[in-house]
Amino acid sequence: MTTTVSERPATRAPIEPAEAGDIARLVVSCSDGPGIVALITSFLHRHGANILQSDQFSTGATGGRFMLRTEFHLARLRERMHLLERQFDVEVARRLGAEFRLRAAATPTRVAIFVSRYDHCLLDLLWRARRGELPIQVAAVVSNHPDLEPDVAAFGTPYVHVPVTRATKPAAERVQLDLLRGEVDLVVLARYMQILSGDFLDQVGVPVINIHHSFLPAFAGASPYEQARQRGVKLIGATAHYATEDLDEGPIIEQDVVRVSHRAGVADLSRSGADIERTVLARAVGWHCADRVFVHGTTTVVF
Amino acid sequence: MTTTVSERPATRAPIEPAEAGDIARLVVSCSDGPGIVALITSFLHRHGANILQSDQFSTGATGGRFMLRTEFHLARLRERMHLLERQFDVEVARRLGAEFRLRAAATPTRVAIFVSRYDHCLLDLLWRARRGELPIQVAAVVSNHPDLEPDVAAFGTPYVHVPVTRATKPAAERVQLDLLRGEVDLVVLARYMQILSGDFLDQVGVPVINIHHSFLPAFAGASPYEQARQRGVKLIGATAHYATEDLDEGPIIEQDVVRVSHRAGVADLSRSGADIERTVLARAVGWHCADRVFVHGTTTVVF
Amino acid sequence: MTTTVSERPATRAPIEPAEAGDIARLVVSCSDGPGIVALITSFLHRHGANILQSDQFSTGATGGRFMLRTEFHLARLRERMHLLERQFDVEVARRLGAEFRLRAAATPTRVAIFVSRYDHCLLDLLWRARRGELPIQVAAVVSNHPDLEPDVAAFGTPYVHVPVTRATKPAAERVQLDLLRGEVDLVVLARYMQILSGDFLDQVGVPVINIHHSFLPAFAGASPYEQARQRGVKLIGATAHYATEDLDEGPIIEQDVVRVSHRAGVADLSRSGADIERTVLARAVGWHCADRVFVHGTTTVVF
Amino acid sequence: MTTTVSERPATRAPIEPAEAGDIARLVVSCSDGPGIVALITSFLHRHGANILQSDQFSTGATGGRFMLRTEFHLARLRERMHLLERQFDVEVARRLGAEFRLRAAATPTRVAIFVSRYDHCLLDLLWRARRGELPIQVAAVVSNHPDLEPDVAAFGTPYVHVPVTRATKPAAERVQLDLLRGEVDLVVLARYMQILSGDFLDQVGVPVINIHHSFLPAFAGASPYEQARQRGVKLIGATAHYATEDLDEGPIIEQDVVRVSHRAGVADLSRSGADIERTVLARAVGWHCADRVFVHGTTTVVF
Repeated sequence: MTTTVSERPATRAPIEPAEAGDIARLVVSCSDGPGIVALITSFLHRHGANILQSDQFSTGATGGRFMLRTEFHLARLRERMHLLERQFDVEVARRLGAEFRLRAAATPTRVAIFVSRYDHCLLDLLWRARRGELPIQVAAVVSNHPDLEPDVAAFGTPYVHVPVTRATKPAAERVQLDLLRGEVDLVVLARYMQILSGDFLDQVGVPVINIHHSFLPAFAGASPYEQARQRGVKLIGATAHYATEDLDEGPIIEQDVVRVSHRAGVADLSRSGADIERTVLARAVGWHCADRVFVHGTTTVVF
Repeated sequence: MTTTVSERPATRAPIEPAEAGDIARLVVSCSDGPGIVALITSFLHRHGANILQSDQFSTGATGGRFMLRTEFHLARLRERMHLLERQFDVEVARRLGAEFRLRAAATPTRVAIFVSRYDHCLLDLLWRARRGELPIQVAAVVSNHPDLEPDVAAFGTPYVHVPVTRATKPAAERVQLDLLRGEVDLVVLARYMQILSGDFLDQVGVPVINIHHSFLPAFAGASPYEQARQRGVKLIGATAHYATEDLDEGPIIEQDVVRVSHRAGVADLSRSGADIERTVLARAVGWHCADRVFVHGTTTVVF
Repeated sequence: MTTTVSERPATRAPIEPAEAGDIARLVVSCSDGPGIVALITSFLHRHGANILQSDQFSTGATGGRFMLRTEFHLARLRERMHLLERQFDVEVARRLGAEFRLRAAATPTRVAIFVSRYDHCLLDLLWRARRGELPIQVAAVVSNHPDLEPDVAAFGTPYVHVPVTRATKPAAERVQLDLLRGEVDLVVLARYMQILSGDFLDQVGVPVINIHHSFLPAFAGASPYEQARQRGVKLIGATAHYATEDLDEGPIIEQDVVRVSHRAGVADLSRSGADIERTVLARAVGWHCADRVFVHGTTTVVF
Repeated sequence: MTTTVSERPATRAPIEPAEAGDIARLVVSCSDGPGIVALITSFLHRHGANILQSDQFSTGATGGRFMLRTEFHLARLRERMHLLERQFDVEVARRLGAEFRLRAAATPTRVAIFVSRYDHCLLDLLWRARRGELPIQVAAVVSNHPDLEPDVAAFGTPYVHVPVTRATKPAAERVQLDLLRGEVDLVVLARYMQILSGDFLDQVGVPVINIHHSFLPAFAGASPYEQARQRGVKLIGATAHYATEDLDEGPIIEQDVVRVSHRAGVADLSRSGADIERTVLARAVGWHCADRVFVHGTTTVVF
């Protein structure tokens, strides 16, 4: 019933090709028009890059937004990266009026995780990071409660307790901003039960990903799992999205659902909800950190 | 790549055991308390029935609602059924203050399908009925438009065109009610794009099942697929529920979703929506007609 | 519970942009190396094409196989298509040693569907074709049995009955090949319960897609649903693949599963199997006809 | 985007009703025949038990196997349990020739987890046990390697390193059996990469659950993920089953799949496989420990 074949734990240490350090990702976004791909790929070809994988999408043939993500191999990437970036800016991006980002695939994304008392999303992220499943480096866990400090300590990750009350919220957000400034590339709200102010979102300077339970139909107000039970919903869902000031939910990155039945009590429903929340959040963070997600207005393109 | 084994098309003519005509279903619902199951099963045993399958559920140990569905075999069912029903009423139901329904499993449910111009849910139901996948007999298709008459004619099913305008709606509903009275056990709204009045729902006297597209998060207003596209939703869903006067959506019978991506235009989204709608509606109708669905307040129990 | 908004049946007549006739698809496959994408996209740009969507994939950075699929808009496509094809051959394909195919997106794929007595896959394909969900034109249905002729006649599609016995199989295959020659671009085995010979597959000259039930674990021999029931499987699957002579299953295009329980008898299992078979086959045929599937050795790349 | 509502972490400490300690589960299995349910439910009623939930299934109306699982509430359960068990044996089980098991729902199942070097299934079980998601008490982790000891130590669970070579296997199994005897109710093979002998399975005296990757189609031999990649499979699956001597796979408890694409390399496939393995194993262990799984020959009934 079991076999003795291959005990190497592939999930912890995936085989990386020798040239993994020479792989880069380029993401570009601009107004669509003819010749964009030719310009970009000619540039890469001219500089000796070999495209491994490429995706592009346009929101419309005329007047649309063009988005491209490409992975390429370039010998001695690290020493050439900085120059390549400047050359791309001059030779391509300015001509297209394009935004772009160039990044070595081996560089992890620096992440701050905000939590309150729920541990399921936090632990899943820490665990996947440790196993090498997520290309992230968790710079700090920030919480308005001290409860989860022991769990986080076991991973050797700094835990910063920043209490928040209605009165101290502006001051608390300033402390948080000081902590994060220049230290992280992404903030993940892993069931952080505080509303971040528009000021915070303006000043944090990096994307913020949030995870949210979701139901068909949607429920307003408190105790959503209790409401879900009363309506007899058959699916419990979760939505990972970028946090924005105006909207309760910003551009959606990923969603999924899990099936439930009338046998599930409120505790069972919220347990199923926790399972789907951690899965959806991990996917969203992974895709974001692999530069797979483009925000376009209120929607996203996920390659 | 293909095999010559067994060409019998099992899906059209499933093997029925010789005694299929002797199988009945009993559904019971009452206030929970001790001894209910013992009373019911002793009754069945005493009258020579052999229980094949049984499900029960209570909404709470004390003060809850008890629901039971049982399938049993009873020799010479048809001739004994009527008497058995009266005996159950006297010996069990009155003592428990219970509602119950006893039905020969081989008796199909008589259904009226209401449609407008969308054909996907209608054709799926007609097709599954013809294949024997759904235990229903479609008594009539009722539509406020003539468009789908040829499709329905191919199945040999009556098609009744009842035009509806704001002014003629009360009269139209009276025509519909006259058509249905005593002729059907269930009304299915298979994308019927008219709001039925509370009067209609009060007087129709049989359950009404509706199918509804559903999104995470929910959208109000017109053009839901356009809204879904603008929000970048990753899942398109459908909800089948019992129609009620007060609520936009009554007790939910079944829900499911299908995955979509940024590549899907509005037409693709509504095509995916159509696929999931017909699947969810067929499941809900099948479960209802197999007496698997209990309504309890605003929720359902589905065995 | 229902709304009066927008009665236009989008699923039957999706809005096509005015220039739909000017959209083409180009698929290219060759040994990977630097500069391929630049060469192709420069060609398209030079000839006035505007790329709408593009996917590419390489099986490895060095020595791999490169595959590209692109959709582009080109004014007056139909009159320029033939010349463009020859130019691409001379200016790009020969230099790369590439295989390619250029096709107007609006041109439907001509399909022959082979069946025996099971109707579920056949009817689903005919139905989706009629609704415009599949970009196919069903040239003929070929069967070794007369049973399904009435069903097919209702769609106005020719039905050709070619009986097959062990003795007459070679002659029957010659009849089938004569029927198909030059008339179809694809053969779909929609539960055709005869093994096609290697000779047939060699001579038919177009791809052949088959649908196959699949289980975890796999079962050899007769009565797979009976075996599945005896092993207590919890999932019933289907696999759509290209038919090949040597293998019982060729390169896989699509797979999916549906959940079953111990309550399902053999008839229920094969009904669930039929549902998932028709869904998986429709997806595979749709992707193939949209030029989304590349065969690479024993595997496929599906964009 | 986030709310301040309800910070209580429901997933760690689900609300248990005051009488949770008074809930018991009874599972019964015997040859089917009339009156069984009446006998059992009358017994429970007579002794003051109130049935909360009940499932039953028969493999056939005549000559089939009857299986029943019921949860009931009985005041002062703990002091009455032992007597009730003897009474049930005398008054019901012997008359029916039935096997039965009676258990307080609050009593956790004592589990030994066997592992080698893969940590994903092990950590998921330990984590869910700590969170109260699985009603188990992990008595020990047994491994043929020392690698995972630090991970296990963090949970305060004993880790027993029992090296196994071809020569020492019989001795190692005796050591394992001595360790387990009387101490555990279940052995879980959480990717234990050693084949347990038939002798071990005979003598261990408790059920053994194994987790196994599964593919459509199945692959024999080494490197299944490499084979899966070469065949272009679109689904990666896992099967949890009871371990048996004769079969490579015994009665199946649960199966599930995850979708993969041509972009996934072997490392990605085995990572997806790890994710689905841990999910499927956790479900199977949870259902087993809730007495939801009946083995009937080579199949299972899962309530």
